[in-house]
Amino acid sequence: MKVRVLVRLKPGVLDPQGRAVHHSLEGLGFEGVENVRIGRVIEMDLADGTSEAAIDDMCQKLLANMVIEDYSIEKLGQTEPA
Amino acid sequence: MKVRVLVRLKPGVLDPQGRAVHHSLEGLGFEGVENVRIGRVIEMDLADGTSEAAIDDMCQKLLANMVIEDYSIEKLGQTEPA
Repeated sequence: MKVRVLVRLKPGVLDPQGRAVHHSLEGLGFEGVENVRIGRVIEMDLADGTSEAAIDDMCQKLLANMVIEDYSIEKLGQTEPA
Repeated sequence: MKVRVLVRLKPGVLDPQGRAVHHSLEGLGFEGVENVRIGRVIEMDLADGTSEAAIDDMCQKLLANMVIEDYSIEKLGQTEPA
């Protein structure tokens, strides 16, 4: 199955990369940009039947830095049978 | 309105970061991980009514490197009225 994990900085944590992109967008003439935050998307092909708990564990142990980041898990459906 | 842009390496482009995470997950004892790809998620607050074309333009000019990356745009809904 395909799983998508979104890892984002917690609200309130300074995001210099987002700030830089925001500034650049304005520099390029785009109007109406109010805020930009940048995070990571991790897409994994996992064996069907991998438990939610195991995915949670992956996030907490490796994928996210729980001190400054939050994560959310989205299941994108089962892998096509071969 | 909130817009989420997902920027991912094109299929076939080597993803050393994904490879490293895949290897680490196996090292931590997680089983059934078949593939890992890592990309960026860019979440923007834009003025309501910003056109799809403008967002497309932002992606092509700044957010994605079109040589090796693809992007997809997801609208997360209108900003709450104050």
